[in-house]
Amino acid sequence: LLPAADLTWQALSRPQSLAIVGSSKNPRKWGFNILLHTLEGGYSGRIYPVNPREKEILGLKVFPDMTRLPEPVDLVLLVVPPSDILKVLNDCGQSGAKVGIVITAGFGEMGEQGKRIEKEMVTLARGLGMRLMGPNCQGMVSPECSLYAHMPAQFPKRGELGVVTQSGNLATSFQRLGESMGLGFSRVISSGNEADLQTTDFLEFLAGDKETKVILSYLEGIKEGRDFRERISRIISQKPLIMIKAGQTAAGIKAVQSHTGSLSGADALYQALFQQLGIIRGETLEELLDMASALTTQPLPKGRRVGIITTGGGWGVLAADHCAKAGLIVEDLPPGIIQSLDQVLPPWWNRINPVDMVTGYRKGDLLETLELFFKAREFDGILLLGMGWRTFRGSYLKSVAKGSEDPMFALGQEWIEEESKLFLDLQEMGQQYQKPILLASDAVHFTPGFQEAIAKRRVAAYPSPQRAIRAYLGLVKRAEFLDRSSIPKIPETSRP
Amino acid sequence: LLPAADLTWQALSRPQSLAIVGSSKNPRKWGFNILLHTLEGGYSGRIYPVNPREKEILGLKVFPDMTRLPEPVDLVLLVVPPSDILKVLNDCGQSGAKVGIVITAGFGEMGEQGKRIEKEMVTLARGLGMRLMGPNCQGMVSPECSLYAHMPAQFPKRGELGVVTQSGNLATSFQRLGESMGLGFSRVISSGNEADLQTTDFLEFLAGDKETKVILSYLEGIKEGRDFRERISRIISQKPLIMIKAGQTAAGIKAVQSHTGSLSGADALYQALFQQLGIIRGETLEELLDMASALTTQPLPKGRRVGIITTGGGWGVLAADHCAKAGLIVEDLPPGIIQSLDQVLPPWWNRINPVDMVTGYRKGDLLETLELFFKAREFDGILLLGMGWRTFRGSYLKSVAKGSEDPMFALGQEWIEEESKLFLDLQEMGQQYQKPILLASDAVHFTPGFQEAIAKRRVAAYPSPQRAIRAYLGLVKRAEFLDRSSIPKIPETSRP
Repeated sequence: LLPAADLTWQALSRPQSLAIVGSSKNPRKWGFNILLHTLEGGYSGRIYPVNPREKEILGLKVFPDMTRLPEPVDLVLLVVPPSDILKVLNDCGQSGAKVGIVITAGFGEMGEQGKRIEKEMVTLARGLGMRLMGPNCQGMVSPECSLYAHMPAQFPKRGELGVVTQSGNLATSFQRLGESMGLGFSRVISSGNEADLQTTDFLEFLAGDKETKVILSYLEGIKEGRDFRERISRIISQKPLIMIKAGQTAAGIKAVQSHTGSLSGADALYQALFQQLGIIRGETLEELLDMASALTTQPLPKGRRVGIITTGGGWGVLAADHCAKAGLIVEDLPPGIIQSLDQVLPPWWNRINPVDMVTGYRKGDLLETLELFFKAREFDGILLLGMGWRTFRGSYLKSVAKGSEDPMFALGQEWIEEESKLFLDLQEMGQQYQKPILLASDAVHFTPGFQEAIAKRRVAAYPSPQRAIRAYLGLVKRAEFLDRSSIPKIPETSRP
Repeated sequence: LLPAADLTWQALSRPQSLAIVGSSKNPRKWGFNILLHTLEGGYSGRIYPVNPREKEILGLKVFPDMTRLPEPVDLVLLVVPPSDILKVLNDCGQSGAKVGIVITAGFGEMGEQGKRIEKEMVTLARGLGMRLMGPNCQGMVSPECSLYAHMPAQFPKRGELGVVTQSGNLATSFQRLGESMGLGFSRVISSGNEADLQTTDFLEFLAGDKETKVILSYLEGIKEGRDFRERISRIISQKPLIMIKAGQTAAGIKAVQSHTGSLSGADALYQALFQQLGIIRGETLEELLDMASALTTQPLPKGRRVGIITTGGGWGVLAADHCAKAGLIVEDLPPGIIQSLDQVLPPWWNRINPVDMVTGYRKGDLLETLELFFKAREFDGILLLGMGWRTFRGSYLKSVAKGSEDPMFALGQEWIEEESKLFLDLQEMGQQYQKPILLASDAVHFTPGFQEAIAKRRVAAYPSPQRAIRAYLGLVKRAEFLDRSSIPKIPETSRP
């Protein structure tokens, strides 16, 4: 009776049609907003609002109940009070709906009574051949089919990051922060109280999902721990999994209990388990997204030895300190590289790692230095600090120039083009040598066009050295896990 | 012969006139760009470009050398090769200039020869009654008189943060990041190789500077350690000093040596010294600016006990964890507050700290909860998570509404106004109860008008709970230092 996992996933991630039970005309209601966002997001399938008291909402015909729809839908979003949920679920099942997302809160997180209703919901749904997501969740995002059926007005672009989170408000935050970093998402799954489908189920879906390259997750607690190890091991053999496990402290554990009602065990146990399984653990959403952006764009490094090239001395110093503190290795420049760079850089170059190009970043100097670093067996990866400033300065000169005949205009244009070409060249080099290169620059966030260029060209760029270093650490952890577990180390970028 | 410290500072921070020796017509040269930025920044004093080979640059009359200026200037920027520096400095001194900023690099950081020239420069300048900043520095920023005489095209707004940095590229980064956070600067001082004036001198200037409320510094090494303790102690009794000390690791120390040529001692010694002196140490520019934004807007807390109010469960959990890990105390809700909140919040409210307003943030609920937290003796400070979303959702509804008669438009407007009023109310409460309140919301950075509202109303707001917590820790460290040193604990906001 129950649909197979792949049918459930199909209905959830690529529904041909969906219904929203509890659709409303009142902009204060979630039943209005979820419908609005589904419409405004441009969902490619058919939408059926359901409400016995309305005829039309936002220009769509409204159906009185689920049994009156013109077709069995793949997906139903339920935005009805807990008291109505069993009746509505029954209608959903009768109508042939495959998956239900229960948005409404007020169930298991409220206590025993709510937990009982959750159990009844699951029994009922399973009997009718349906699977459930939620309750107390935010909805589903799947940009592949322009599906933004969720509470916030967020429409992140299509990308390679798959998210599973037990907190709805963190689902919003993942999308918001990702957007600001130029990152896209494959699916964003707000799993809520997990009465039926659980984090591990969704992680399995994402592991087999061709849209998803890296999996991010926020976890408060595991409900069914039985085969967690085995299932996570299989998932991680396929894709990197980066996770925040909340409830690390007494204060956090209390907060978890009052939030999703999860039981969050001693953090040291999770820490050991995560380490063993190869889950990459992070502390903040920013860290997760930073690592994911490296893992989706860069080949894995062979080790922890980084070569650093900077266009500013202070950043070089900070990068060296942060690398060493993070456990990366800032090896001395090998004599061969020093000799070669003596031919390339001005006589006063600094002759250490980080190489400071402050006076030497002109003509092909930077590119030649980069190529030496890519070729060097002593470096497993490269940090390049300070790109973007040429573009920024060029844009400024153009903006103050008096017309296109002004020498400032010509020079501005020259710099912009020069740096733009450099981007292409360094990306090509990265591909050619299969070595990760991470950029850090505080010009990233404020230079028009730069962020887009990065996104398009699959360059990993960060607004500060320490964030690039943390991201590099994500690459290292993935590489070390694959080495240790002797899973064939296909570069993530060429995985299916 | 030498001008008194206050005259030096006057000439550096509020020059009536300045000269740029080495002014150029070539947009590739710093001698062009520094002049351009001084002009475009709208500097309020008189500007004299100096170059024997030009008559006019950017519409300004050019003078052949310093001795031909129509008046003795307060400040000279020197953008001339090291080989010409002594000759030019001599002219500067003869002309009656008070302070010289040597932008040019290629001195002490290059080795013994450069160090010798630096010594000669200082001897010569002092003999002529001049003080020097640099060499190998980026220039001077003093928005009070619209002075942006520096290398990057950065024009940060006037504010209360004073910066002293031994790295020019970090001077740029401080400004860039500060601008993106809505923060302004009193002075930005790029001290370079510090041949004459040193970090400690500049810190003293800022301690006595009425424009500056909080001092930020990036330090690679101290040249004259003799009376460092005494001088820093005096500075810190007046204003908070937040510092990055680079060269924390072997890799960092090597990088420091090749950068400014500073000798960076064992980090443990600095750590102990900083702790004893009450310097607040940070690891990243972001951390420094986050702390500074709290220290300039909030009263100091009496302790480490924070009350947390959130409009999203996941953020509450993360905040509880991050507080506990940072050494802040997430005390249980006192019974009195629970009883009072039972009157205010819906029956299912979570009854713990963090209080989750997810279902209860409506009418005056949030404000009443806030007032209870402000009044509670059990909380030394407040974290408020998730504000800004009303404004964001309101703006979205208005943007999709079909004209101003659409109910979405009216509701959108209502939400924007509601939250805007809430801001005013909570700021008033903060003033009334003299208790710090820090906001965290990922709506901060993307909601039009929100950032400005925050800046204007002197609210400290952060894009994530962990950044707000780090900033709160800055307040705590300052408060604990003042307690320990029994310096009268005047709230920073009311210090002169």
